[in-house]
Amino acid sequence: MPQTPVSIIVDWGTTSLRASLVSDAGETLAHLETQGGIQFIKDGRFEEALMAAIEPWFAEHGLLPVFAIGMITSRNGWLEVPYVDTPANATDLAAGSRQLNLANGAPVTFLAGLRNPKGDPFPDVMRGEETQIVGHGLEKDQTLVLPGTHSKWARVQAGRIVRFQTYVTGEIFALLTQHSFIARAAVPQANAAIDWQAFDRGAALAAGNSRAADSFFAIIFSARTGLLDGKLKPSETLDYVSGLVIGSEFRQARSCGWFQPGDTIGIIGNDGLNDRYKRVAPMFELRVEEGHNDEAKQGVLLIAAEKAPAGV
Amino acid sequence: MPQTPVSIIVDWGTTSLRASLVSDAGETLAHLETQGGIQFIKDGRFEEALMAAIEPWFAEHGLLPVFAIGMITSRNGWLEVPYVDTPANATDLAAGSRQLNLANGAPVTFLAGLRNPKGDPFPDVMRGEETQIVGHGLEKDQTLVLPGTHSKWARVQAGRIVRFQTYVTGEIFALLTQHSFIARAAVPQANAAIDWQAFDRGAALAAGNSRAADSFFAIIFSARTGLLDGKLKPSETLDYVSGLVIGSEFRQARSCGWFQPGDTIGIIGNDGLNDRYKRVAPMFELRVEEGHNDEAKQGVLLIAAEKAPAGV
Repeated sequence: MPQTPVSIIVDWGTTSLRASLVSDAGETLAHLETQGGIQFIKDGRFEEALMAAIEPWFAEHGLLPVFAIGMITSRNGWLEVPYVDTPANATDLAAGSRQLNLANGAPVTFLAGLRNPKGDPFPDVMRGEETQIVGHGLEKDQTLVLPGTHSKWARVQAGRIVRFQTYVTGEIFALLTQHSFIARAAVPQANAAIDWQAFDRGAALAAGNSRAADSFFAIIFSARTGLLDGKLKPSETLDYVSGLVIGSEFRQARSCGWFQPGDTIGIIGNDGLNDRYKRVAPMFELRVEEGHNDEAKQGVLLIAAEKAPAGV
Repeated sequence: MPQTPVSIIVDWGTTSLRASLVSDAGETLAHLETQGGIQFIKDGRFEEALMAAIEPWFAEHGLLPVFAIGMITSRNGWLEVPYVDTPANATDLAAGSRQLNLANGAPVTFLAGLRNPKGDPFPDVMRGEETQIVGHGLEKDQTLVLPGTHSKWARVQAGRIVRFQTYVTGEIFALLTQHSFIARAAVPQANAAIDWQAFDRGAALAAGNSRAADSFFAIIFSARTGLLDGKLKPSETLDYVSGLVIGSEFRQARSCGWFQPGDTIGIIGNDGLNDRYKRVAPMFELRVEEGHNDEAKQGVLLIAAEKAPAGV
């Protein structure tokens, strides 16, 4: 029996727009992606761009409600939605969302990001990851890591996201491997496969008892001295640095109290880094529960199922 | 009474060539600088480039000995000089230097860099800073820091440089402020003055008891959350980040055992960062002895005064 489309989810970021047509059973019936990220939208013509992408779905299925996440809800987007403060659950996030109606009458709900007012030294923020955490589930008390350009470590407790902290790990990796002394010496592998042996060496160094392991500015220079000393090949450098950087994130997260040896953590999100994080976790004596790779959509549906948001 | 020129010191790096005509009393009688860095020298025509710069001095003062330091002594330079291992003093460094004669007969001595074979995890290296340390003096046991793109912490003991460690602090600062989320938000100050208040806030955070201070990947995100929270102005960001990065270097150096509260350290070299390092040191309960800003030349002269080097 064909499923009935009931909503449209739009993940609209800086560089692209992705839209999904979703059924009452939560299945994705259709999906599209354009390069129309918000940085390319002139003169605030967001509605025009959205309609160009999803009007055929309206034409076929009627005025379905639209749910928008991503930077489209930020100051640089269509409608800035204030952050909701932790502790927060799906109900709190739904209450913080904002709504407007398209010219055709279809409602667009802009979901809120999340703010940790107890961030150190300043309140920390996320915009999108909170939806993934809700989609992963808030029933069980647990610590989650969401790998990415700006990774998030988050704590779920008593049914709410209670706190989180940002680590700019992915950005540090990109800076080092695109613009630094490492970029000048590294040679990407001929095939695109991950060199797990090189990755493990970097991660094990960060996880180990070396006195330099707490000194990232020093230990990262090993990407150069390893080459000079013949201990590291140019083709191994990128994955060695990847392991060293992600391992350093775990080490720093441990020193901030995010976990202790023997704990179980969840690794969720789907930005392509999860396999690397899964590999590092055991080096810090962590057990891992994996996400189901569908958290963002499930999170939107759970937040959408809460009470109707306030208009603007 | 006019002083007699006795040698020519050439500091020949990747981007520039700097030459000094030096007297028997160690005074600089003349100085020149060209943009003829080694990266611009085609087909190994180093001698031609050198003569174009300093031939007038030969013509006027005769065939003075030349001493070369910098990347000209590296694999990409004119004559690769193998590193001398720590522990080392001026005599050891002189013994490791290499010499060739110009077509006119003047000898050119290429000074050696220094290698710490006990570097963690790989042997560490410097090429140039060892000359500055010798010029500063090896008589007193002390810990020295040489600020820079790749800062060096070094220990002088019993008349020798016994160990050192590289911190890529200046490079991390440049990457963050030129290419990252910080670069997009920061606004340089209208006047070029350092905003010491903003600098101190960043440094104090790194020096303080915040749990995040050991987590550089997390605490650096404060350059963004501070803006979002109205605690930091775009014009304050660069000096705030400078303080946070240099403060983090001190924190990491402390965890590697380079100093304890109450110690005295020397801050030497002359790359324009010394004032910032001097300001951070007291936040870590360190007393500072400053260099005399002339260490490189003095170091060359001290090494030159040792026994004649081996030919090639």
